[in-house]
Amino acid sequence: MPLNVLFAATEARWNDYRAPLTDALAKAGIDATLATDLPPETVDYIVYAPNSDVQDFTPFTRAKAVLNLWAGVEGIADNPTLKIPLARMVDPALTQGMVEWVTGHVLRHHLDIDYFLARQSGSWEPKVPPLASDRPVTVLGLGELGAACAQALARLGFPVTGWSRSQKSIPGITCLSGQDGLKSALQSAEILVLLLPRTPATENTLNAETLALMPKGAVIVNPGRGPLIEDDALLAALDSGQIGHATLDVFRVEPLPQDHPFWAHPKVTVTPHIASETRPASASKVIAENIRRGEAGEPLLYLVDRGLGY
Amino acid sequence: MPLNVLFAATEARWNDYRAPLTDALAKAGIDATLATDLPPETVDYIVYAPNSDVQDFTPFTRAKAVLNLWAGVEGIADNPTLKIPLARMVDPALTQGMVEWVTGHVLRHHLDIDYFLARQSGSWEPKVPPLASDRPVTVLGLGELGAACAQALARLGFPVTGWSRSQKSIPGITCLSGQDGLKSALQSAEILVLLLPRTPATENTLNAETLALMPKGAVIVNPGRGPLIEDDALLAALDSGQIGHATLDVFRVEPLPQDHPFWAHPKVTVTPHIASETRPASASKVIAENIRRGEAGEPLLYLVDRGLGY
Repeated sequence: MPLNVLFAATEARWNDYRAPLTDALAKAGIDATLATDLPPETVDYIVYAPNSDVQDFTPFTRAKAVLNLWAGVEGIADNPTLKIPLARMVDPALTQGMVEWVTGHVLRHHLDIDYFLARQSGSWEPKVPPLASDRPVTVLGLGELGAACAQALARLGFPVTGWSRSQKSIPGITCLSGQDGLKSALQSAEILVLLLPRTPATENTLNAETLALMPKGAVIVNPGRGPLIEDDALLAALDSGQIGHATLDVFRVEPLPQDHPFWAHPKVTVTPHIASETRPASASKVIAENIRRGEAGEPLLYLVDRGLGY
Repeated sequence: MPLNVLFAATEARWNDYRAPLTDALAKAGIDATLATDLPPETVDYIVYAPNSDVQDFTPFTRAKAVLNLWAGVEGIADNPTLKIPLARMVDPALTQGMVEWVTGHVLRHHLDIDYFLARQSGSWEPKVPPLASDRPVTVLGLGELGAACAQALARLGFPVTGWSRSQKSIPGITCLSGQDGLKSALQSAEILVLLLPRTPATENTLNAETLALMPKGAVIVNPGRGPLIEDDALLAALDSGQIGHATLDVFRVEPLPQDHPFWAHPKVTVTPHIASETRPASASKVIAENIRRGEAGEPLLYLVDRGLGY
């Protein structure tokens, strides 16, 4: 009998995923009915996006797992009706895209590319940037995305410090953890990349106190989550010169409202949540592999620890 | 008896090099008198920049080698009074700086960073860039600099084609050579990086005919040498849309004259020859090592083939 796989996400996502997910399930040898509407009590697996209409999991009495299409699981990890395993998406294409975006913006700030772009009216003022080896970079968050970005930056020659809640060990990266570790990671960060998950513990990681620890004129790059930064504290630190620039891809409210001071601020670059995205072809393979594992009684990949929230 | 080492470059360079070169010679165990003014017939080695006052090497009757401070040897390779070996500078710091600059600008174009920098007035228009694996990059020139840049770009995920006069073999890079190879290297190049040496054979490598081979809207990044590009042909290709953008760090005349059309062109980014530079500390070690080799009867590093001009 075929498995029933419910696709619970927006219609736009269904249009993106229908063909590649059907293909990935077939290639994984899974006989499945994939649909956006199935009687809840018949559903075996739920492919899910947190902005789906499905918010009450109670009627899904025989479902074995929720397979999230997004890397972030805020908006589902704390759903009290969810009693079955939840897996995050770890899409190799999302990781790759994030590495490219983070490397590009770290190099943009390291090389002071904005300075040169603003001098196209005939002013020949050579100013050779320092080498990456003289530019300490810190990455907060050493999950899939943070670790991959830290390693790419280290391969380019930056001295990279990484910080995570629990101590990690990554070749070529100075790994720190805990509150003292955070202080030290911020103190050396000429460029700071935020790739922490959004949890109650990470909210406002950058606030007036922590921003003050950074070297004067440091740059912040946030492709992680908006609430990692206390907006008003960042604006004050930019205005005082404590922080030199902030390149922000994520915000507390998205789209970022037209009247938010980040838009007009000369020291802020806003990008519209484009640092990276899950790509249907590679993400569908991850979903199919997790359904295969579920049916074979193997542990699911990328299971969420719902106590920690990631 | 100490060796006599003449430092034949501008006074500004002497101020940069005096201390690190003295230090590097001492560390290499070389007993030397280093000076900017020595009787020519007493000089053993000439540390040289092509913009030096020394243009006639005839009086240096016992000199054993000219050790160039620059990567480029145009302006000395064809000097008919030079009858002794000439070594180029291959400074690991220059290579590293070039890798950073090239990677930064290739990512800038790949990620379309300029597009987002120009949209800071409240327009939230997500447009996620393709992955590097879908962005073919070609590097013309596979010497020290070109090979290092090609490898760094390949490590980031770009499919990289490299072209050189003589066939090379570099892991992870599709290496082409010859006229047919050049055609093929240009045909696939969504982003083209120019790192060829300046020789009579490389002048105007990019001209109306070769620019027309590239994919429509391709981007050119030139940190190599100005004369590699025929300026008028590039301007015409930018105006027709055949070339989407050119980021140029080097020019036929430097500083680039105020009235040159590159400055005001909306599809040209001018940077003032800052992609990379030789750094005195690391370059001094290369000079000292070559003097040590000369005295020990070992072959010099980075000898120039004066027939080829590099």
